Amino acid sequence: EDAPTVDQLDQRIRVLERQLELQQEDADTNARKTATVSASDKGFTIQSADNAFQFRFRGLMQADGRWFLDDKAPRTNDGFLLRRVEPTFELTFSRILFLRIQPNFAPDSATVSDVYGELRLDPAFYLRAGKFKEPIVLENLQASAGIKFNERGLPNEIGPNRDYGVQVGGDLLGSTLSYAIGVFNGAPDGRDGKQQPDTDNRKEVAGRLFVEPFKNDPGLLQGLGFGVGGSCGDKNGSGDSSQVKYRTPGQNTFFSYLAGSGGTVAYDGAETRISPQAYFYRNRYGLFGEYIVSRQKVSLASDSATLSNKAWQVLGNVVLTGEDASYAGIVKPKRALGKDGYGAVELIARYGELEIDKDAFPIYASPTASANKARNWAAGINWYPLANLKIGLDYSQTGFDGGAASGDREDEKLLFTRFQVAF
Amino acid sequence: EDAPTVDQLDQRIRVLERQLELQQEDADTNARKTATVSASDKGFTIQSADNAFQFRFRGLMQADGRWFLDDKAPRTNDGFLLRRVEPTFELTFSRILFLRIQPNFAPDSATVSDVYGELRLDPAFYLRAGKFKEPIVLENLQASAGIKFNERGLPNEIGPNRDYGVQVGGDLLGSTLSYAIGVFNGAPDGRDGKQQPDTDNRKEVAGRLFVEPFKNDPGLLQGLGFGVGGSCGDKNGSGDSSQVKYRTPGQNTFFSYLAGSGGTVAYDGAETRISPQAYFYRNRYGLFGEYIVSRQKVSLASDSATLSNKAWQVLGNVVLTGEDASYAGIVKPKRALGKDGYGAVELIARYGELEIDKDAFPIYASPTASANKARNWAAGINWYPLANLKIGLDYSQTGFDGGAASGDREDEKLLFTRFQVAF
Amino acid sequence: EDAPTVDQLDQRIRVLERQLELQQEDADTNARKTATVSASDKGFTIQSADNAFQFRFRGLMQADGRWFLDDKAPRTNDGFLLRRVEPTFELTFSRILFLRIQPNFAPDSATVSDVYGELRLDPAFYLRAGKFKEPIVLENLQASAGIKFNERGLPNEIGPNRDYGVQVGGDLLGSTLSYAIGVFNGAPDGRDGKQQPDTDNRKEVAGRLFVEPFKNDPGLLQGLGFGVGGSCGDKNGSGDSSQVKYRTPGQNTFFSYLAGSGGTVAYDGAETRISPQAYFYRNRYGLFGEYIVSRQKVSLASDSATLSNKAWQVLGNVVLTGEDASYAGIVKPKRALGKDGYGAVELIARYGELEIDKDAFPIYASPTASANKARNWAAGINWYPLANLKIGLDYSQTGFDGGAASGDREDEKLLFTRFQVAF
Repeated sequence: EDAPTVDQLDQRIRVLERQLELQQEDADTNARKTATVSASDKGFTIQSADNAFQFRFRGLMQADGRWFLDDKAPRTNDGFLLRRVEPTFELTFSRILFLRIQPNFAPDSATVSDVYGELRLDPAFYLRAGKFKEPIVLENLQASAGIKFNERGLPNEIGPNRDYGVQVGGDLLGSTLSYAIGVFNGAPDGRDGKQQPDTDNRKEVAGRLFVEPFKNDPGLLQGLGFGVGGSCGDKNGSGDSSQVKYRTPGQNTFFSYLAGSGGTVAYDGAETRISPQAYFYRNRYGLFGEYIVSRQKVSLASDSATLSNKAWQVLGNVVLTGEDASYAGIVKPKRALGKDGYGAVELIARYGELEIDKDAFPIYASPTASANKARNWAAGINWYPLANLKIGLDYSQTGFDGGAASGDREDEKLLFTRFQVAF
Repeated sequence: EDAPTVDQLDQRIRVLERQLELQQEDADTNARKTATVSASDKGFTIQSADNAFQFRFRGLMQADGRWFLDDKAPRTNDGFLLRRVEPTFELTFSRILFLRIQPNFAPDSATVSDVYGELRLDPAFYLRAGKFKEPIVLENLQASAGIKFNERGLPNEIGPNRDYGVQVGGDLLGSTLSYAIGVFNGAPDGRDGKQQPDTDNRKEVAGRLFVEPFKNDPGLLQGLGFGVGGSCGDKNGSGDSSQVKYRTPGQNTFFSYLAGSGGTVAYDGAETRISPQAYFYRNRYGLFGEYIVSRQKVSLASDSATLSNKAWQVLGNVVLTGEDASYAGIVKPKRALGKDGYGAVELIARYGELEIDKDAFPIYASPTASANKARNWAAGINWYPLANLKIGLDYSQTGFDGGAASGDREDEKLLFTRFQVAF
Repeated sequence: EDAPTVDQLDQRIRVLERQLELQQEDADTNARKTATVSASDKGFTIQSADNAFQFRFRGLMQADGRWFLDDKAPRTNDGFLLRRVEPTFELTFSRILFLRIQPNFAPDSATVSDVYGELRLDPAFYLRAGKFKEPIVLENLQASAGIKFNERGLPNEIGPNRDYGVQVGGDLLGSTLSYAIGVFNGAPDGRDGKQQPDTDNRKEVAGRLFVEPFKNDPGLLQGLGFGVGGSCGDKNGSGDSSQVKYRTPGQNTFFSYLAGSGGTVAYDGAETRISPQAYFYRNRYGLFGEYIVSRQKVSLASDSATLSNKAWQVLGNVVLTGEDASYAGIVKPKRALGKDGYGAVELIARYGELEIDKDAFPIYASPTASANKARNWAAGINWYPLANLKIGLDYSQTGFDGGAASGDREDEKLLFTRFQVAF
């Protein structure tokens, strides 16, 4: 065979150059067209190459134990339970349409937590419709994966939980001010609203303003936030699904309005709630507090009154292993178990009170069956071996004024355990 | 360093040529072996490189409002609701086995809409088993994401809804003829069938033939389709789950057979349904109509009779912004919101009637509690800002003959709102 | 144009060499960073490039028919049903944390089958919390997609089903020994446990040891396994959710303790279960057997007794088309339908008995309403056209001692059909 000529080599190099160029173009085209996937501690996603469409799978599983330390107290049985089982689909369409479907399989009959569509026209304006949390109570708005104790505190018994309705909201001033205002079917204190056919024809308006003035300024006050939430609306109803019942952290009812053969107390007009709230997070330390008062008109037979029930709490946490505390709540350990350490550890403490209007007794509630005041303190420890795992142990004690034939209802003393997987 | 020789260059070029070849082979092999993903307005998929296995995630969320315009009419309360929350898994195995799991989280206790497996041996023959819609009523067979009004019309109250059973079907003659025939537990008018233990031992056979003669011929009549569905089967039962109740679009019952202390009407023998149906779609215009009659044997104490209840409706729509109308129903806007326009807009109108057999009164139904005829008309507007979003507003009015102590039941006047995300 | 010089060619080749190297590095980096997906008969997965995080979607759908061959027997109505509809998410985080969420949409109200988190610190040790099967009964621990008959046999009526609790377990000695021990709320015979608030404050400990001594030695005895499961715990309760009811394969109750106006039998103290068990799989043949006895203290008014109920069964299968039989149960056909054959076919047969303690009658159970012994035999055929599809037909006949006013309860004769998609 003859040695190749320089011209032949030149030819072959040209071919190679062109082939390489084409290969690179192919790869670039593919990257532009091909949807991408990811799997991490933040969940599992499929998204289109231009990011306009996204599927994200997230979830939360809480396997709890509840152990009452005193057999005398009025209480449910000890035992294991699934507190939340929420596989969650978060979907984005054309960049501006968002859909969240969050079922909850923990109850014996599965139901939904959040389900809503949201049209995000601007950071400063979204329109949301479906079922979601009324924008009022600070701890209630914290994601369930991030709350510090097994059960939220007493103010959540007065604020509403999730409800059916529409809401607008957004972030202003460089995200230092967030607002939300919505119209809802109306939820009884501490509970979910009911969907149409609603318990009544009246609707409830709820809103919240929250400010983090130094959010964009690294410094001492960067993690400071404060605001106010509230609601107002007529209510009308006396059935079980509109009845007010306040519960302890152990989920035992310590206050309810009279119901039954002696007559049933009815919601009978305006309810107004207002809740100032604040938090402060700085490095490993976190503190938040909130207050809520609800004024509501109730009636029984020919009597009627406007009663004010109120609650407040303060909650603090410190991450012993040095990771940052935050309102989002989940601590991602610097040194994970099975890798280079044993995870993160956090101490938590809380105190709160709930007080019933004195005028509720004895016409609208029985002083020997319902307490007029509850005081709860709780302390515990959370261990985060991995970013997606939390193992928690906390003790909660609730004392009462009234609520028993003999005077004060027995204290509820309760040990909580939790095994939580969140992603 | 010496200048390279031509032979050395030749050597290096050979190496490059071989490397490039290998790289290309690797890329091709990967493409052949690697499962692919996609994310678009059609949903989210994972499929094997040979397309034999496919996971497809789809969904539907309808957040509605129902606002009755007249407080006098017998009706439920106004309010917001979740009408359908259906995250849906469509799975394909070995090309020929299909599985659809469509839960519905809208009810307070989650349930399933469709669940079935389907062995697709040929375009002309599939075998299906599970829970799915009986093949009878045209509007009922239309996907819930594509129906024009918030609630389907009166013929759907007489046809069955989903049921448990097995079905065979397929497409013949170049897909211009489709057939389906199945055996089911048997569903009461307007409702889902019950699974084993069924209300009775008897089964129901349902089938449908539908022709689109010009489907493959572009031209005036391409969008024309017509056919007939029907069912027959013995029924036997009087409990709540087999009781016939006809509802208005506002979901208020306006007719039911007698039940209770005065005796309860029982299904007591054969029920036969027959439903001729047709549609025509041409560019931006759509029109469809259907009729259904049900003959069923009922009894009360020593009386028995075979009663014929019937209903029909005509429904039209026009897409103002020029997109195509179709039976599938979803309009994909040419100019989407947030991109180059404001989406698509469609006007919709409907008229329908439902008539009870005159012999039903007064033995089997109370003339003062149940109407003997209902007339519904409705009109509305649908806005499709994006391919996956529909915002709808429609008005529905239903008038009655009979059904009240004073003569005619009050008209139902109802404003519907809908925020729908479908993919 | 001048001919290129050798030096120029050398330059261009260097550039190409470098580009090719970079392209290869890019591809390698991408492969290391990019999450991968797969779609096959084993399900659908997304996993991070380092395999630490994984999403796996699996599922099971069983569309059944139940056809009783004798109208005289006490029984439910014939009909179609969805037996299991279980889309399942299996998630792995940081390699060592596993989460399984398995809803079941077959009941009219959706619920969960399995939900648990599992920290897998070592093959020899995991910690699990949530809701899952108590580790006792062999056939119960077999995956529902793999059981041979439509309904499990009589020993499953005495063992517990799923329960809420925590468990540790693992594999030792080269996986030839597996162990599991857990604490649970306590489940009544044949049923799921109830979550907190539990029916009582007492808990149940359950455990199981299972040996496959020749698992790693190919040879005659490789598929041999045997072991023992058991539970003990105090029980206390008489409500419907703690009441013992034994059912036939047709899901008709043939034994229950007295309940109602004449007094209700209560669990009233210790229950102990013990269950020796074994299986043997060899090529196309499979055989397994198990025995279970439950001793439990019951009381009614001033009477109390400790009663021993027991059951056993033997089950065999042979795969006619030559594929391997296994405890996992699913047969993957060598020649699939629509490809190169007609799938796999298997014959199955079973015999089992359940015997009530003689002392149960007549104080704690009625001899004319509850049988004291049941004998079940069943035989059938399973066809696996594809790896993910099973179509089954089996016949089950159950005879009784006692249980009817006239002496023996009528035999239950039952034809089962199943259309199963599993992946």
